Amino acid sequence: MGYVFAVVGALGNVGRTMQGILAQSDIEIDGLVLMDVPDNAGTKVGWRGRECAVVAAEPAAFEAVDIALMSAGAEASKALSPEAARRGCVVIDNSTAFRMDPNTPLVVPEVNPEDLESHRGIIANPNCSTIQMVLVLKPIHDRWKIKRVVASTYQAVSGSGKAAVDDLFAQVEAFVAGAEMVANVYPHRIAFNALPHIDVFLDDGYTKEERKMIDETKKILDPSISVTATTVRVPVVNGHSESLNIETENPFDLEEVRSALAEFPGIEIQDDPGSNLYPLAINADGKDATYVGRLRRDHTIENGMNMWCVSDNLRKGAALNTVQIAQALIERDLVRVP
Amino acid sequence: MGYVFAVVGALGNVGRTMQGILAQSDIEIDGLVLMDVPDNAGTKVGWRGRECAVVAAEPAAFEAVDIALMSAGAEASKALSPEAARRGCVVIDNSTAFRMDPNTPLVVPEVNPEDLESHRGIIANPNCSTIQMVLVLKPIHDRWKIKRVVASTYQAVSGSGKAAVDDLFAQVEAFVAGAEMVANVYPHRIAFNALPHIDVFLDDGYTKEERKMIDETKKILDPSISVTATTVRVPVVNGHSESLNIETENPFDLEEVRSALAEFPGIEIQDDPGSNLYPLAINADGKDATYVGRLRRDHTIENGMNMWCVSDNLRKGAALNTVQIAQALIERDLVRVP
Repeated sequence: MGYVFAVVGALGNVGRTMQGILAQSDIEIDGLVLMDVPDNAGTKVGWRGRECAVVAAEPAAFEAVDIALMSAGAEASKALSPEAARRGCVVIDNSTAFRMDPNTPLVVPEVNPEDLESHRGIIANPNCSTIQMVLVLKPIHDRWKIKRVVASTYQAVSGSGKAAVDDLFAQVEAFVAGAEMVANVYPHRIAFNALPHIDVFLDDGYTKEERKMIDETKKILDPSISVTATTVRVPVVNGHSESLNIETENPFDLEEVRSALAEFPGIEIQDDPGSNLYPLAINADGKDATYVGRLRRDHTIENGMNMWCVSDNLRKGAALNTVQIAQALIERDLVRVP
Repeated sequence: MGYVFAVVGALGNVGRTMQGILAQSDIEIDGLVLMDVPDNAGTKVGWRGRECAVVAAEPAAFEAVDIALMSAGAEASKALSPEAARRGCVVIDNSTAFRMDPNTPLVVPEVNPEDLESHRGIIANPNCSTIQMVLVLKPIHDRWKIKRVVASTYQAVSGSGKAAVDDLFAQVEAFVAGAEMVANVYPHRIAFNALPHIDVFLDDGYTKEERKMIDETKKILDPSISVTATTVRVPVVNGHSESLNIETENPFDLEEVRSALAEFPGIEIQDDPGSNLYPLAINADGKDATYVGRLRRDHTIENGMNMWCVSDNLRKGAALNTVQIAQALIERDLVRVP
């Protein structure tokens, strides 16, 4: 017996990627319900050779659904997810709505699948920049115990949705045409620029994106890990890059770190500087792995290392991780609302 | 009585910027000799309303020159700078040739002008990404003593020369035309990408650019400061951005750090997140200042802070700093080869 899935926010960047990943997945899928805002209801979308009509996202639409992959923003999720769960549908939510809720597991399946056991109908998908980072931190933390991480990100425009990608393209087209580059989505132009501003600013000067990397890492991995972050948007279409400086409690051999990373599921090492091989956003785009390279010892502290980590923020950073959570729920027989 | 200047590498990105800054400067300039590779000799270039013919860069051409601003690469500098100095010309060299030579001062005039006193005819201009960083570190180090810096850079393509900028533009034009984006200068495409690779790789996995930030900071500021760096090229035309995580020996008040930075020559604070004000490469382009923003406490260590610092890498990162060194030499009556 298979499952009925829903994708909520079906016409967004992440929603479309979810459909693509579900189409390729070997999960037994008996039906797919595509939901979006009422204005988009009726839009036809192809899936596994069939044509699906988008329906309005509303509580009743979840009646026959077993697993809903939700990527419709925090407001919609707050309104819909509890209603869906009440109807017996397990929600895997990609918004910020439930991530820090103590009753909601926040899961990267390779890192903390055991947290799924306690779900009450809603599972939160972490922030994109957090997912690829904790995936890389996990095998290091398990063996050498991580004390502190200093992260600087180079985040792609696709993370802000289709309108932002269109805006980047429009700016680049204007440049080539000799016209003025106008910013419609971000407060400043993103073409040929680097914006140290992702999500809103908080009182202490950090952005919410930076705060997510700090808080979500503690929740997923270990509250004792200290993270500080500077998150930056760069004119890359898809694929987040991260410069990570990691300090461990225990001394490590760099080649053992490399092996531990290489053996961990979801990670691929691309680290051969001599042949100009290192992770690149344009190569990670469309791939499932999180790529690690530029691994080297940080000589300024006793147990420190630097690395460069790149992943497709729409796939592992969002859509793929939600499908992997669904898979883990199925394997653990947890597709039910307690 | 004024000075005869030379600009060597006159047709490069930095050489042209040097000419522009000299044209605007209030240094008394009695003559300007433009030098470049023999193939470019005879090229006519306008300067202060006159037309100058480029001459071949060779030892004899320095005979009547008082101060040479050299931006012709390390090989040319190794060959020419000692010859120029032998002819009584003080050389301010923008290449790597003499930066780490213990007999050559490495100077950012706001930071270590006193090092000029001991020059023997050649003064080295630091690497672009180092200059803006040490400028920002200096007022903090003076008062609170810096222990360690973790730097991640977002460096502009102009730092690789005109061919690299042309290549970025060609890639963007190809994209808009629906054609393939071809990489001619870097080993990979730079348009819509982030390359964790600037200058060549060294044996320990660091790039030479990263090594420069580490070693030059020690030489300019204090050998006791530990720097670790990840240097990254982004598709920005001009203006380097840096994410800096700084740990001090002594406890600081963040507002006092802000004041110390604001009062320091060459630094401008742009830090009002509420109105989306923070340093941006597109705003620093063409400006003399080094801009600092996103200043905030790093909660993971006792005395830590994060900031975002942006400067025009062709101006303060290269051409402007050499002219400022010339100015400092003149003010200190050091325009002579001992």
